[in-house]
Amino acid sequence: MERISASEAEDIIATAAELAEAAREATLAHFRRADLTAETKESARFDPVTVADRLSEERMRAILARRRPQDGILGEEFGSLQGTSGLTWVLDPIDGTRGYLSGTPTWGVLISVRDAAGVVYGLIDQPYIRERFEGGLGRALVTGPSGVAGLRCRGARPLSEAILFSTFPEVGTDEEGAAFRRVAGKAKLVRYGTDCYGYALVAAGMVDLVIEAGLQAYDVQAPIAVIEAAGGIMTDWQGRPCLDGGRVIAAANAAIHAEALALLNG
Amino acid sequence: MERISASEAEDIIATAAELAEAAREATLAHFRRADLTAETKESARFDPVTVADRLSEERMRAILARRRPQDGILGEEFGSLQGTSGLTWVLDPIDGTRGYLSGTPTWGVLISVRDAAGVVYGLIDQPYIRERFEGGLGRALVTGPSGVAGLRCRGARPLSEAILFSTFPEVGTDEEGAAFRRVAGKAKLVRYGTDCYGYALVAAGMVDLVIEAGLQAYDVQAPIAVIEAAGGIMTDWQGRPCLDGGRVIAAANAAIHAEALALLNG
Repeated sequence: MERISASEAEDIIATAAELAEAAREATLAHFRRADLTAETKESARFDPVTVADRLSEERMRAILARRRPQDGILGEEFGSLQGTSGLTWVLDPIDGTRGYLSGTPTWGVLISVRDAAGVVYGLIDQPYIRERFEGGLGRALVTGPSGVAGLRCRGARPLSEAILFSTFPEVGTDEEGAAFRRVAGKAKLVRYGTDCYGYALVAAGMVDLVIEAGLQAYDVQAPIAVIEAAGGIMTDWQGRPCLDGGRVIAAANAAIHAEALALLNG
Repeated sequence: MERISASEAEDIIATAAELAEAAREATLAHFRRADLTAETKESARFDPVTVADRLSEERMRAILARRRPQDGILGEEFGSLQGTSGLTWVLDPIDGTRGYLSGTPTWGVLISVRDAAGVVYGLIDQPYIRERFEGGLGRALVTGPSGVAGLRCRGARPLSEAILFSTFPEVGTDEEGAAFRRVAGKAKLVRYGTDCYGYALVAAGMVDLVIEAGLQAYDVQAPIAVIEAAGGIMTDWQGRPCLDGGRVIAAANAAIHAEALALLNG
């Protein structure tokens, strides 16, 4: 990782907070509104996008254009913008648009900053709860309804005592679903439907594992920053870096990570 | 339904609010605490109960003993108490203990009051979000992070445009799961993992259907009050009253209720 000065770190953190506030306002303006409708981005399946996804990303891009014009941007809705600083902001204006459309409180806004080596800072924001999980540049904390608290992943325990989350019960392809079920069958408790909030709960020390497939770079980079800052591990199903998404596993500690990887590849 | 006077209605609503505040404090005192552990109530599967479930119900029972000693009580953790008034308070101190243990924000406290004919008032409270959905005795409203708003179920749309929720992908027995999948296969969007929050979202006009099985009286009575007050329908899979739980369907309107029932029994 390239060296980031204290003043640069401070500006990155302050910029990310401004982005998150703008995204909160944009997403909450349409949340649970009876007139909200969705288009689908793919014809083969329902992959929804709403006016709120676009508004949220536009607002964030406008702030970056003003505050950090030297940085690149990769956003879910409006693609890539090259920068000159070596830093790129990776934005998912609404992670979990299906949950957003349904009124649940577990979708989120994902904001992160990366350099050539990896993610340097990221946050997971849940606008409706007013809850924000941050990791990187010396921070590992949650700010929400109960105030501010540090983030620390759970200690090691066997899979038979562990809690596993995934957004979709089918996970991905048939093969991916079968691999997931080899782990799920041995876990104490398996829950679905949480989108990015599942990763936040790994960092908060509540959940041992999140296993998913078919993810994009903008789905994973903020969770990587938050989970690593809290002492956890996030890789692909072979244990390699997963900055570009794909099949990912987030684990509270090395022991449960190893136990789950062996079953995924078993 | 027996006639409830205005002053009696006011006292019921004020008592329910006091119970909900006490339950919020009791449940949040242990929520996301690293030292929280669960016992299982059944040996065959993991059916967790925590110190928070018991504390929450104890606090509510103490308030009822002081404010409404003439009423009966049915609670998940401490059973039945006969009353003399013809009214019974039905309490689930934590609906969704698995979600509570995992740190999610979709478990809730369920409080309702019934007479011989049915449920007269109920509420679904989500302590962490500080959000409360109420229905009955002239109320149909949500109070939460975005202020106060009326509750109104969605208008009719075909199942192919509808959102369906259930807590567990397997739903119940193999037969119950197969019936559920006949509906799920035709819905636009299916989501899992929400416990009582799914019923609140039907009342809030976000979700068209919740279909579940294996429920208890204390799981369903508050949702019935909230959903009916918002113009929706909650029955068993034969379209009959479901006050005692079992297989239940909550629907935003009569058209989607009929379409789903036909498939459940198809």
